[in-house]
Amino acid sequence: MDNNLQDYSHKRYNILTGEWVLVSPHRAKRPWQGQNEAVANEERPTHDPSCYLCAGNTRINGEQNPDYKDVFIFTNDFAALQTTSPEFSVNDGLFIAESEQGICKVVCFSPDHSKSLADMEVEDINKVVKAWQKEYLLLGSNQLINYVQIFENKGAVMGCSNPHPHGQIWSQSTLPNEVEKKNQHQKAYYDKNKSSLLGDYLKQELEVDERIIYQNDEFVVLTPFWAVWPFETMIAPKKNYKDISELSESESLAFAEAISKITKAYDALFEVSFPYSSGIHQAPTNGDSNAHWHWHMSFYPPLLRSATVKKFMVGYEMFGSPQRDITAEQAVDRLKALIV
Amino acid sequence: MDNNLQDYSHKRYNILTGEWVLVSPHRAKRPWQGQNEAVANEERPTHDPSCYLCAGNTRINGEQNPDYKDVFIFTNDFAALQTTSPEFSVNDGLFIAESEQGICKVVCFSPDHSKSLADMEVEDINKVVKAWQKEYLLLGSNQLINYVQIFENKGAVMGCSNPHPHGQIWSQSTLPNEVEKKNQHQKAYYDKNKSSLLGDYLKQELEVDERIIYQNDEFVVLTPFWAVWPFETMIAPKKNYKDISELSESESLAFAEAISKITKAYDALFEVSFPYSSGIHQAPTNGDSNAHWHWHMSFYPPLLRSATVKKFMVGYEMFGSPQRDITAEQAVDRLKALIV
Ligand SMILES: O=P(O)(O)O[C@H]1O[C@H](CO)[C@@H](O)[C@H](O)[C@H]1O
Ligand SMILES: O=P(O)(O)O[C@H]1O[C@H](CO)[C@@H](O)[C@H](O)[C@H]1O
Repeated sequence: MDNNLQDYSHKRYNILTGEWVLVSPHRAKRPWQGQNEAVANEERPTHDPSCYLCAGNTRINGEQNPDYKDVFIFTNDFAALQTTSPEFSVNDGLFIAESEQGICKVVCFSPDHSKSLADMEVEDINKVVKAWQKEYLLLGSNQLINYVQIFENKGAVMGCSNPHPHGQIWSQSTLPNEVEKKNQHQKAYYDKNKSSLLGDYLKQELEVDERIIYQNDEFVVLTPFWAVWPFETMIAPKKNYKDISELSESESLAFAEAISKITKAYDALFEVSFPYSSGIHQAPTNGDSNAHWHWHMSFYPPLLRSATVKKFMVGYEMFGSPQRDITAEQAVDRLKALIV
Repeated sequence: MDNNLQDYSHKRYNILTGEWVLVSPHRAKRPWQGQNEAVANEERPTHDPSCYLCAGNTRINGEQNPDYKDVFIFTNDFAALQTTSPEFSVNDGLFIAESEQGICKVVCFSPDHSKSLADMEVEDINKVVKAWQKEYLLLGSNQLINYVQIFENKGAVMGCSNPHPHGQIWSQSTLPNEVEKKNQHQKAYYDKNKSSLLGDYLKQELEVDERIIYQNDEFVVLTPFWAVWPFETMIAPKKNYKDISELSESESLAFAEAISKITKAYDALFEVSFPYSSGIHQAPTNGDSNAHWHWHMSFYPPLLRSATVKKFMVGYEMFGSPQRDITAEQAVDRLKALIV
């Protein structure tokens, strides 16, 4: 490892998106006099009568949730994307727009209102993984849908309006910006090298072993060389799978185990139910072979120094490039020590 | 105007970056049960003895601020970019990094701790504009510096750790991501059409007059067709100027007037000192002619529904594309009514 990377300002290249992150290792010493986040460490009941995601309760549109026992999925009552919107396009000089159709769903991970993925048994996380697989195939088989985005916003600081353990799936006709970038960069590499960009990267990471936080037979959990968020991580299969539906029974359990390990380490880091957005990037469902795709799940957590001090991606980050203070390697050292 | 744009989900194309924003007009009706931001409406003193930006006070590194009367500029005590860092590069398989050198400065807009740009006289804002011009030329003339990013983070919710009116300038050797994208898109258009991409866009906007919030002889304030943030706006010169140093005396005053108008309208919108990040994108200082550049200042304010409810750019936005609920045109109608 080049020692300069731990001491001096530099930028690192994201091989999947073609973008750069500015790293300023010396800057972590800056005192913080800004906003503090609220810590939500209160105990929650296992069932909350006022929660619209708990079993048996009534949602805002009048529908009643079933008395579900593990995972419960329904179509978002305030979907950003709908199947019923008309097709149209605007091509008026420099005003360019396209209609976008899609389906948005909510995935309750557990009927237990008090839990998060970090508190759930690996077997129960595996039920969530299986639900994701099913939805990826189901939504992907719809003629309208060419891409399925699975994600979770966890914690009030990440815009999550309900602490009940749940994630979302937004599926749509076209590829969103981030997916389009990763599609292009993986394809260019695959066409040239006839091998998986992320697969080759994982091999290099496993060899140098500087950013690996955890691994089992099937999965690696690491902080990418080009990570943006202070404690950003990625879970990726060692095999070159293009989407999550390719996982065998034992592989999906190994994936659930990796999720369990990293979310528990996160909660231990600042002794708080760790906020993040996570998401799975995988092959579009557009009917192409998509052999260049290597799926992966990323965690983007905002906390920087403590349970109350987050990293703000503002000014320079919005107008220039993302910027981080602690290096990826420093983050790895801390997270790795918390894997149990 | 195509009515579909006000009623149905669609994506709009950003001609400057080549990226898309997802617009879901029907979704504004969604109830909000999530995090509320704190409102900071307390009166501030004109001088705060504990503020490290106030005149005469001592900063964390022991330096004393002068007894300044208008604008005061100093080198950031915790600079993310430095001139003293060594040059190096990492080109190790799929690990790619480059050293980055630069200069970071802090620009105090006024000695008056209680003010923001919205409360300042146009003549005093003009002094800030002149300071920006001077710094752009000064930093840009440094051999090390090829790009100068001027920006402001305003409000605790935007990571600003001190309410004293101030902005920052981060200048550096290479072009950051966002600037690189705008450089490419403006260049491609200019090479093809021999005219300014943003200039032609402004002409089209002035003709249809659907997104113009304010204009004077020299400047337009509008919400771009592809705006991401709920009340995002852009100030752009009507002339095809590549950087702010080209403004004449009267033009710089007209720019200050535009800043005054829009920041006052922002404060009136939710009756709160309106948080935002603002920034100026302008020609690199790399010695090229950069005739394709048309400079502009953008405001990215996070508030969505009220002084306490902001838009969260999380999950889908991080993994997919930015997404907005109210349309650009709805935002324009509200802001336009508040211009005085
Ligand atoms: O430089 P400041 O005000 O200490 O810090 C603020 O602005 C910087 C530049 O946009 C960001 O990197 C920081 O996250 C933010 O807290
Ligand atoms: O869908 P929710 O949970 O109501 O809303 C949350 O997630 C969405 C998808 O990332 C974001 O667009 C919203 O800003 C956020 O508050």
